[in-house]
Formats: sequence, structure tokens, C-alpha cells
Amino acid sequence: MKIIIDAMGGDFAPAVVIEGAVAAVKECGAEIILTGDEVKVKELLSKAHYTGDKIIVHHTTEVIDMSEPAALSVRRKKNSSIVVGLNLLKENGGGAFFSAGNTGAVVCAATLILGLLPGAERPGIAIIYPTLKDFSLMVDVGANIDAKPAHILQYAVMADAYCRYELNKKNPSVALLNIGEEETKGTESVKETYNLLSQSKINFMGNIEGKDLFTGKCDIVVCDGFMGNVALKVSEGVASFIYGLLKREFTSSLMSTTAAFLLRANIRRLKKSLDYSEYGGAPLLGVNGVVIIGHGRSSSKAIKNAIRVAKEELECNVKDKMAEALSKLNIAAKKDGREL
Amino acid sequence: MKIIIDAMGGDFAPAVVIEGAVAAVKECGAEIILTGDEVKVKELLSKAHYTGDKIIVHHTTEVIDMSEPAALSVRRKKNSSIVVGLNLLKENGGGAFFSAGNTGAVVCAATLILGLLPGAERPGIAIIYPTLKDFSLMVDVGANIDAKPAHILQYAVMADAYCRYELNKKNPSVALLNIGEEETKGTESVKETYNLLSQSKINFMGNIEGKDLFTGKCDIVVCDGFMGNVALKVSEGVASFIYGLLKREFTSSLMSTTAAFLLRANIRRLKKSLDYSEYGGAPLLGVNGVVIIGHGRSSSKAIKNAIRVAKEELECNVKDKMAEALSKLNIAAKKDGREL
Repeated sequence: MKIIIDAMGGDFAPAVVIEGAVAAVKECGAEIILTGDEVKVKELLSKAHYTGDKIIVHHTTEVIDMSEPAALSVRRKKNSSIVVGLNLLKENGGGAFFSAGNTGAVVCAATLILGLLPGAERPGIAIIYPTLKDFSLMVDVGANIDAKPAHILQYAVMADAYCRYELNKKNPSVALLNIGEEETKGTESVKETYNLLSQSKINFMGNIEGKDLFTGKCDIVVCDGFMGNVALKVSEGVASFIYGLLKREFTSSLMSTTAAFLLRANIRRLKKSLDYSEYGGAPLLGVNGVVIIGHGRSSSKAIKNAIRVAKEELECNVKDKMAEALSKLNIAAKKDGREL
Repeated sequence: MKIIIDAMGGDFAPAVVIEGAVAAVKECGAEIILTGDEVKVKELLSKAHYTGDKIIVHHTTEVIDMSEPAALSVRRKKNSSIVVGLNLLKENGGGAFFSAGNTGAVVCAATLILGLLPGAERPGIAIIYPTLKDFSLMVDVGANIDAKPAHILQYAVMADAYCRYELNKKNPSVALLNIGEEETKGTESVKETYNLLSQSKINFMGNIEGKDLFTGKCDIVVCDGFMGNVALKVSEGVASFIYGLLKREFTSSLMSTTAAFLLRANIRRLKKSLDYSEYGGAPLLGVNGVVIIGHGRSSSKAIKNAIRVAKEELECNVKDKMAEALSKLNIAAKKDGREL
């Protein structure tokens, strides 16, 4: 099954996308369709000395920029690398799509073109992030900023399936991002979400505070997309801030520079532990297709890893497992006389 | 003017509170009333060899625990160190109150007992946090989790006055925490807040993303209390996580341990840059009195610094400056025919 890649998406596209795609073909034998400017893409492929037949280029004439309004650009740019790529995915009836481009546009186009899984009312972006233990999953980090409690329950159910079948975690624990651990904390909407999660069959362990996100206390953190996006970006901000301070300190004298030189392997390892690119992209849960979203600043390594993740998702058939979990959720809700 | 201190509030109370109070008296000549268990407090004062007359103990018989529900405990525990302390502040007709105890209870009791400044519809907790440039102020970090746009405008106006008169920043810039810089980003409520801030007379510079919080791009960040609380706690979480990783790396071999030993002064300085206790407590804006809230884990140094901040706030008369700014806001709103 083919993996379709938006060659024009991301801050360093198309160069790093092509590099990542070529590396993925070599490393895991992925079969790839690149959507983008044929001349540019082919030039870069020959620059990367790629002559095989595992990468096909599908010409597109438009690009949705990183800062364009999502819905409008998707409607207007029918021949963009994102819209064409997702249409190809639909026509192919399988495979996966990856883009490091305009996240809002990918979410919007994927929802419009592929539709949602039965029982999923909104899509949610899940990121895999490092913790002191190993890694956890957080959903939603920005697909849906006006999430209702039922949407967050659906995220939890899909993330549970994702964790079991793609990340090989048995009976993953789920926590709700909140401002305190007590069940009485939070806005009315957050409290209602707590109740829905408590009544569900997932392994719900209660609320989690921001300070515990990185301890590895739970496998899955759920929240609305506004909150999740702020949490994600604050994390990036704090990490950059501490790096900035470390750099300032480590270059402040000859002794500190020397000592920091001795620690270079350790610092490299520390950076690797924090590096999102090790984990590939972020799966878009809830759409009827395998869609992976990359960080705008994705390196070729991040893109290669995201393609590997897409291939694994296809092999594990995670999308169908999520659909199955959602249908069970619906049956349970109907049995209890609840509307979803 | 006296500074009233909840001797029983905080994870390490009353010991660290008494130490902090004694240090503050020595350092800045503060006059203090300690509310709490007289026997315990006097024992600790004599242990600290304090024999002066600048500290008075006011006996209270109840303590509101850190995890008690705020409103209920304030209503029930009339003789708690928090409720008695705030009543004393009101009776004294001036001075300040500090507590490192149950934040929700302090906010609730302060609002009930002192009332709000005319034009402030909700209280907001402001924290001063370090940035790569110097420091910034963020409000609200958890007093009011269901903030309306008008409340956030009021926070901005109060924080502006606080920055000008207490922190000596001229024409401080204000930004709104959001998931993107564009004015079209965010929920309906966030977009409405953007509009209100744009139309006001404060130096509004637009939206700020979490990743830019620590660059020092703006002097004041405003947001609702749920968002602010999550952002604050995620920051703590990331910092602990990176410390954890650093510690693991720095103790992984003899060479790294040696190199880290050479860097100990730098690491100490780094920690100091990140240490909330350097900045003292967080002012509670909007209540009709000077109230400072400390972190539950406050050290004696943090408490001493918070007392210093309280004394400075009194000397600069910040509360009246905030009231003045709010009344101008009201006049402007009425002139435009807007309801606040």
C-alpha cells in the first residue's frame, strides 16, 4: 500500500521532504507517491541520486502556505499538494497520507475528503511525547478547539486502540488534563468529561495536572484542542528557554566551555530524548483514513520516521481497530439510553 | 502598615513561614501579624531567636488544608488562619495579607471579605516569571476558570498598572495567550477578548503562542484562569523533566560527574534563573486589598521575598493605581455605550 506525501509541506519543503522520503524507501522499503511541483521534486530526487521505482511523483500546481486560513485555502486550492494528496488516498482506497504543511488545512481537507469514522464526531491530533519513563500520547493538540465532552471520550477510545495496537501498550491508562487531581476541579465541561470517562470501559485514572505530564504517570492524556495546543507549545517554549539558559551558562567561561565539551555526548543524548523527530509525526485520529501530520519544522529524519510510523499503522490496521472501538462505544451508549 | 501572614499555610508550614517572617523583619523592617496556632508559632519564634516587637501573633484555632474545597472551607472555618487574617486586614483598613496555603480558599475568602475593586468583576492571580530578557507577568493563573472577555480586559488593565508602578516598566506591552498569532485564531471567546483588548488604551501587541512565553516578547500575558493554570503547571513539569534528564546524564559516568562538578556554579545560577522563590509570591489582582499568594511549596526565602513584595506594593500604592485604571476603563466603556 502506498504512502502519499505532501512534498510541498513544511518550513523546509520540498528539500527535506524528498530527503526523508528517499531515506524511508531505503530503510523500510516504503512505496511513496509525492504530490507537488513535478520539476522541482524530480530535480531533488536526482540530486539525492534516487533512480528506483518506489517513488512516484504526482504533479500539483498549487501550495497551501503555512499561515493561510485553513477552510478557505482548502476550498480554493483544489490543485494543492494537500487536497490532491488526500483525494488520491481516497481513490486508492487505502494507504496513508503525510504532510508537514499547514496543520489546519490538513485537518480540514482530511475531514472533508475522507470523512470521519462512524462514531467519531470530530478529528483529534495525537502526539507522542517523551516522559521520564518512556513516552505518552496526548490528544487533541489542536484539531478541534471547541471540543465537547463526548468528543474527548471518543479521543480517549481511539487513543486507547492506537496505544494497544500501534504502540504495544497493554491496557493503557488514560488521564484528563485538568487544573487539579480532584474530581470536583475544572470547568463544567471538564467535569462532564470526567464523568463520561469514568463511566466508560477505558482504563481511566482521573485528572492529571500539567506538572505531571512528563513523569510517565499515564499512557494517554486527553483534553480539548485549545488546551492541548497551548500545553504543547508551552512545553516547546520552556525547553527552548532552558536550552538558552544552559547555552549562556556553558559558554560563560573557559572552564564551563571545557566542562560542557566533556559533556557533549550527554547533552546530545538529552537533546535526543526531547526530540520530537525521533517519534515521527502525529496521527490524526477520527478521520476515515491514515493521516499523519508533521511539525512545520520537520527535518528529513522526522519525515523519514513519520513515513515509518505510517507504514506501521497500515500494517497493524489501527484505523479499523479504532473504528471497532468507536462502534462498541456507540452500542454501549445506546444500551444505556444515552445519545452521543 | 502591617503585613498579616497566614502562619499555617503551605506544605512546610508553620516552620518555613516563621523563618521567612523573621528574615523579612531583619531584611526590610516589615511589621508582621502572624495568624495561627499561638503555641506552635511562639515556639518557632523562640527557636529562631526572635525577641523583637515587630512580629505579633494572633491566635487562630482552625487550619484550611491544601486540598479542602475552597468555598465550603471558607464558609465553615471562620476561625482559620486565612479567614481571620483577611478579616484583620479589613479591620485594619490597610496593610497586606500573605498566604502560601490553599489558593482557592485565599481567593474565595479575599473576594468575600474584602470585596472587589469597583470595575473588577473577578479576581485574577498574577505571577511574575523569568524570561530570556528579564521577567514577565501572567494573569490569570487560576483564580477564575470561567473568565469572560471583559474579565480578561480588566486583568490587562490592572496588570498594566501593576507593571508600571510596582515593576517600573514603562508602557508595558500586553499579549493574549492563544494558539496562533493571527487575530482569527482561537475560540469565539478568545477572539472577542482580542477585540476588546485591541479597542482599549493599553499597549496591546496581539496574540502570543506558548512557545514565545519565555522569550520576553511582551511584559504581560493575559488569559483565562484555566488556561493560565495549565500553562504554569506544564512549565513546572517541563522544567522538572529536563532537570531529571540532566541529572541522569550528569551522573552517568565518572567523566560526566566530574564535568558537572566543574559546572556546579553555572547550574546553581541556572536554577536561580528559574526559581519562582526569587520573585516572591503572586499578587491577587482585583480584590479591595493587598493580597499575595505563595506557592504551596514555598521555602522560607520565597516567603521572605513575598513579604518584601507586599511591603513594596503598599509603598507604591499599587492597589489605588489599579482602581484608578479600572475607573477610567469604565468611563471609556460608558462613553462608547458599552456595558461592562
